[in-house]
Amino acid sequence: MAEITVRVIEELLGKEPSGDGRTFTRLSSYESAGGDAIVFAQDEASLGLALGSAAGLILAPLAAAGCGDVRVLAVRDPKYAFALCGRWLDGFTQVVVHESAVIDAGAVVGRGTSVGAGAVIEAGAIVGEDCVIGSHVTILGSATLGDRVVVQAGAVLGAMGFGYVRGEDGRYVRFPQQGRLYVEDDVEVGANTTIDRGALGETRVGRGTKIDNLVHVGHNCLIGKDVVIAAQTGISGSSVVEDGAILGGQVGIGEHATVGKGVILGGGAGVLSGKKMRGEGEVFWGRPARPLKEYLRDLARLKKR
Amino acid sequence: MAEITVRVIEELLGKEPSGDGRTFTRLSSYESAGGDAIVFAQDEASLGLALGSAAGLILAPLAAAGCGDVRVLAVRDPKYAFALCGRWLDGFTQVVVHESAVIDAGAVVGRGTSVGAGAVIEAGAIVGEDCVIGSHVTILGSATLGDRVVVQAGAVLGAMGFGYVRGEDGRYVRFPQQGRLYVEDDVEVGANTTIDRGALGETRVGRGTKIDNLVHVGHNCLIGKDVVIAAQTGISGSSVVEDGAILGGQVGIGEHATVGKGVILGGGAGVLSGKKMRGEGEVFWGRPARPLKEYLRDLARLKKR
Amino acid sequence: MAEITVRVIEELLGKEPSGDGRTFTRLSSYESAGGDAIVFAQDEASLGLALGSAAGLILAPLAAAGCGDVRVLAVRDPKYAFALCGRWLDGFTQVVVHESAVIDAGAVVGRGTSVGAGAVIEAGAIVGEDCVIGSHVTILGSATLGDRVVVQAGAVLGAMGFGYVRGEDGRYVRFPQQGRLYVEDDVEVGANTTIDRGALGETRVGRGTKIDNLVHVGHNCLIGKDVVIAAQTGISGSSVVEDGAILGGQVGIGEHATVGKGVILGGGAGVLSGKKMRGEGEVFWGRPARPLKEYLRDLARLKKR
Repeated sequence: MAEITVRVIEELLGKEPSGDGRTFTRLSSYESAGGDAIVFAQDEASLGLALGSAAGLILAPLAAAGCGDVRVLAVRDPKYAFALCGRWLDGFTQVVVHESAVIDAGAVVGRGTSVGAGAVIEAGAIVGEDCVIGSHVTILGSATLGDRVVVQAGAVLGAMGFGYVRGEDGRYVRFPQQGRLYVEDDVEVGANTTIDRGALGETRVGRGTKIDNLVHVGHNCLIGKDVVIAAQTGISGSSVVEDGAILGGQVGIGEHATVGKGVILGGGAGVLSGKKMRGEGEVFWGRPARPLKEYLRDLARLKKR
Repeated sequence: MAEITVRVIEELLGKEPSGDGRTFTRLSSYESAGGDAIVFAQDEASLGLALGSAAGLILAPLAAAGCGDVRVLAVRDPKYAFALCGRWLDGFTQVVVHESAVIDAGAVVGRGTSVGAGAVIEAGAIVGEDCVIGSHVTILGSATLGDRVVVQAGAVLGAMGFGYVRGEDGRYVRFPQQGRLYVEDDVEVGANTTIDRGALGETRVGRGTKIDNLVHVGHNCLIGKDVVIAAQTGISGSSVVEDGAILGGQVGIGEHATVGKGVILGGGAGVLSGKKMRGEGEVFWGRPARPLKEYLRDLARLKKR
Repeated sequence: MAEITVRVIEELLGKEPSGDGRTFTRLSSYESAGGDAIVFAQDEASLGLALGSAAGLILAPLAAAGCGDVRVLAVRDPKYAFALCGRWLDGFTQVVVHESAVIDAGAVVGRGTSVGAGAVIEAGAIVGEDCVIGSHVTILGSATLGDRVVVQAGAVLGAMGFGYVRGEDGRYVRFPQQGRLYVEDDVEVGANTTIDRGALGETRVGRGTKIDNLVHVGHNCLIGKDVVIAAQTGISGSSVVEDGAILGGQVGIGEHATVGKGVILGGGAGVLSGKKMRGEGEVFWGRPARPLKEYLRDLARLKKR
């Protein structure tokens, strides 16, 4: 069984190791905690609850350092420390390539990568090391994944984009969709999300970006690093989302638009084709998306007449 | 072949059984009806059409009782009676666990449950009796399903939720997603819908709730009983939807929000994080969602200047 | 290896064939072009880039006919010509029914149709000739597909629609969902899209219509010919979308609505249940959808107070 010691936690956080060898085997809520469990308290209110629980170790804010309960380990960001413990314990999960997975002889799958039941990895696909590919995931031959990529069940990576040319007869002919999709290290992709390959060029999802369920990323999109994209958001073809941007759920982004570095789009925001939203930490809201202050003023105006 | 008699229909509706043994084998539209078919007429206008059809039995409103056509069976709610007939006939569908389904030895699947081609039921999953699990459905090990649950093709039950903690280096670490998902009796889930498991606690979908295609339910959500959720609606983490609420299509609900008992959200309505919408039978519309009257007034104001 | 000659291109375009036997094997962007590659230049600006590339053949506008570079083939619509070349080259793709596909003995699959890994085609389903069925696609027994239909990974065709009748006990009973789904010739369906079958009657998607990823089409919908539906759009039950309409992404259409011939709905537009939007080439925007001019005026009014 996976175990974590206080000493390992201190190392994960870059703290001076105390040599404390107390051992824990699981993370827990307060309700289901026991002596083998770690919990966290992000603030004073929850600290009281944590102290009242049966947890064996309490990750608590620095202010709690002198509280006298030996179960308390004071850290700068308890929730973050808790998440790091989770990642460390996850590292002991057994790597399994399910016998029902369909991995083509022409595909490359790195060491330490798990592949779920019924997942399909086509010829031409490249999957890095220590990835977790869920059940029923489809990785088309056009897709290259880095290391430690997590793809949850039912996601489709590298399908053909949605580009057509209309002839004089009114009928549509598909524009060639023969490019590739690159998903960099540490990206996580939610269940039933779809990310299309480039048409002639590439689609790219940058290192560390996290994507929720049922998201659509169109062909030729360039998504930066450490971007967060919540559920059911859609990004049309050839758009750019720069590093560190945060997109709420059900956001819609037109074609050839740009969401600048660190921009925050509230849930349901809409960015028109070709628009550029800029400003690190700036919050935009509404359809069409506008600065939060302006959006709220508009709402208020509707009421004031 | 499945058959239903007038007497059975009367029993289903809690009526005094007449002993009428006339037998029918299918439900039908007026156009494709025959002597073996049951149709329904919800009002007088459609009754004319029904009488003109070749149907062998016509479920009709009480007002039609004396119309003299022996094919007419007068009932309080003909459409409801028709649906009950459908459910009764469905009961004769053969239970099949497809040979290509992947049911882990560590999963539990109850008697009378059908499992479609390529469906995956992981170790730790519990599926009740008389369920219908569609093709390509993924039921992760974190999910518990009650009895008579219907899950249509491609749905993903119990995937990891979307919760991350950002470190000082700007990178995201996943918050532990180790809870469970409980789907109670008689719930129905549409194609390619995703319902995530709890992070530390649970996600729950209450008895009798019906969920359409491509819906997203985030981690730790508590969905009540007899709730209706139309297609492409998204419910962010830790939100509550109480019994009997009705959510239109493409509704978006932020985190930690509450949709009260019997509340009706119009298609595309948006509920901000932390908001509480209350009022049984109250209709809310727009983004942000507001009482229908207010929403319509706002729209009108836009035009009047 | 597939090859295309200038003469074939001229034939595809209905031009007088010059007998030019120069041969090319691939389509390309300017950056990765070589002597074996065809590129296209839609206007003068891109023509310069194309001429500067290593491409062996440049599909260029008629105005470029006399430019003196033997690589230039002047055509009326270079992008369209490029797309036709792509379709022609696609014709050489090997037809493969993957050994892991589950095709029921009671299903019909036409000649020349490829079926991807893990795809499921149920008893009762009919799939025409020269189709491409992606991995993990589910074609239920209720679905009939024409010829040259493309269905990308994870799409679900013919699932039960979302129709319920509420009893006096407050519980919902499913209305019978026993109709069929007809998908006509040359339709293309994106990844993880869901199209439900009719309840008693039929759902139909007309010839040549193109549907993007994660789209929902409800039961009994009638979608016309040469319609374009972008990602994450949802069409509720019993609605009609007539020939040549163009629906942007995340459009929402209520029940029993009509989108008239050639109508254009901007991204995120919402059409209320029962509404009829009419006007060939007319652009509607917003929620509720209104003529573009009116929508823009409303937006401006919000700012002017």
